[in-house]
Amino acid sequence: MASPSFLQDTYAGRRVLITGGLGFIGSNLARELVKLGSKVTIVDSLIPEYGGNRRNLAGILSRVKVHVADVRDWPRLPRLVRGQDYIFNLAGQTSHMDSMTDPQTDLDINCRAQLAILEACRIHNPTIRIVFASTRQVYGRPDYLPVDETHPLRPVDVNGINKIAGESFHLLYSRVHGLRATALRLTNTIGPGMRVKDARQTFVGVWIRDVVQGRPFEVWGGAQRRDFTFVDDAVEAFLLAAGRDEAIGEVFNLGGPPPVTLLQLANQLVDVNGGGNFVVRKFPAARKKIDIGDFYADDRRIARKLGWRPTTGLRTMLERTLDFYRTELTHYV
Amino acid sequence: MASPSFLQDTYAGRRVLITGGLGFIGSNLARELVKLGSKVTIVDSLIPEYGGNRRNLAGILSRVKVHVADVRDWPRLPRLVRGQDYIFNLAGQTSHMDSMTDPQTDLDINCRAQLAILEACRIHNPTIRIVFASTRQVYGRPDYLPVDETHPLRPVDVNGINKIAGESFHLLYSRVHGLRATALRLTNTIGPGMRVKDARQTFVGVWIRDVVQGRPFEVWGGAQRRDFTFVDDAVEAFLLAAGRDEAIGEVFNLGGPPPVTLLQLANQLVDVNGGGNFVVRKFPAARKKIDIGDFYADDRRIARKLGWRPTTGLRTMLERTLDFYRTELTHYV
Repeated sequence: MASPSFLQDTYAGRRVLITGGLGFIGSNLARELVKLGSKVTIVDSLIPEYGGNRRNLAGILSRVKVHVADVRDWPRLPRLVRGQDYIFNLAGQTSHMDSMTDPQTDLDINCRAQLAILEACRIHNPTIRIVFASTRQVYGRPDYLPVDETHPLRPVDVNGINKIAGESFHLLYSRVHGLRATALRLTNTIGPGMRVKDARQTFVGVWIRDVVQGRPFEVWGGAQRRDFTFVDDAVEAFLLAAGRDEAIGEVFNLGGPPPVTLLQLANQLVDVNGGGNFVVRKFPAARKKIDIGDFYADDRRIARKLGWRPTTGLRTMLERTLDFYRTELTHYV
Repeated sequence: MASPSFLQDTYAGRRVLITGGLGFIGSNLARELVKLGSKVTIVDSLIPEYGGNRRNLAGILSRVKVHVADVRDWPRLPRLVRGQDYIFNLAGQTSHMDSMTDPQTDLDINCRAQLAILEACRIHNPTIRIVFASTRQVYGRPDYLPVDETHPLRPVDVNGINKIAGESFHLLYSRVHGLRATALRLTNTIGPGMRVKDARQTFVGVWIRDVVQGRPFEVWGGAQRRDFTFVDDAVEAFLLAAGRDEAIGEVFNLGGPPPVTLLQLANQLVDVNGGGNFVVRKFPAARKKIDIGDFYADDRRIARKLGWRPTTGLRTMLERTLDFYRTELTHYV
């Protein structure tokens, strides 16, 4: 794992831009960077369907700069990227279903805006370190499990296609234009601040909301196996990726503790909550077409190259997430 | 190869839209379809940097409908796709260098416009047969030769990244929305009507122009091996791909006669021309970064599935191309 002194040396006093910084992972990253003594600037569109929520910065709002702006608003980008030491680039459209019903918006945010950010860097800050939040969705339905980084990319939805382009742009600008970029392919990430209004980030959000509200939640299918990363582990991966030269030009999967079926997860959630119930439903037809079946990631590459390992077990991540939403839910629904 | 009666049965009296239909391959396709008795509509932007040229339709202008329109002009698309039986989707930005200096334009044409065409089809013509012109550029620098369709996709420029997205959108709409799409990955295509003003389609265009004008042409490097498809063979591949159910949802490489080095090609061009000369130059640094080294395609998959085989040898394709430009060059420079 990253030693505290390595992170301190890397980030204390440094200027850091987080796109999507009011979102789930971005805000947790901001909180950690503030602790490490970074000068944090956040840009977030606060589009209601996306993950941004001012509440995510509770306690550190006075210690970060927040620009409510859309990364599609190109003229603002040069001023934002100039002088930064690091960019954590997490602004994105994450909903698989929305990408199918409104593909152009997904393209605008996950491709056009990404190119605009990279062009702004190339012109105004050409040696910047940048870490891009990609997704396991780039793989599509796995040929084998666990899925490593050499697995073919055969995305099953527009979101997966556009995220491939987004990460490819980052790696290309790293190779050709001198930016120093890394892409992390995230799986389901869980923790305080996650979107629970709907399933746009992960279906687990809705389960958490329902169980906290004492309502039965819906399990679609149930036999699919999935893996889960706790947000603190994901944050550490971002910090390591931006800080280590071995990560430049590379793409890494993030994983978590051993995968479970959705039914196992549902039972564990009810157990950790000390009560609750769920109903199992057939997989809806419209989603079936873009479902990926079983998925869990092989994260040995980032372990080998950067020494990152997920340290939070499933039970702990559910406990800490439920704890958070027991008091905070009103700010997130 | 395709039997004449199969092509007649498939295309006689049918309505066919060709995007980029004033371009090199699109216009050759239009000419063949007119012969087969199709009702051909062409849409082409005639942007000077792209391949469109009215001269390409010499002799058949009165037998096709031509809309000078940009595929980025979305409101016009529904009217264009309605009622068509086939779309040959060849509108694209092809220059690798331009994609690096103006990546957003490449994205607009090769991704946004493609999504708009597909959305127009989904809404207004949901079972249409569509063939998308992709490129060997999606592969990047080969791991092995010849490159088959399972080779990893690691594009070395923005154009390659965007063309991957473009073909992925087509295959996704085929799988999820019922359109019936095929993608063809083209290598260097040669023949009458090719762009010779500059190297935006292939470097061979400039060689042809220079040798016809009696000027020495420039060979960069020389040792790189490449393969070449004659345009008539490429046209046949498009016609087969749209006509055969086995092609739906598939992606195929096109290839040609055995590959040659650029020096061998240069010598053969001078030989076929009955004179001429060239100078060998070091590969320019800006292009070196996005060069792919040796490339030639394995085209056995389309041979196996559709029975397509390139039948034109290198000498013949150079002869026929030179013959054309000896009389036509003034319309193309």
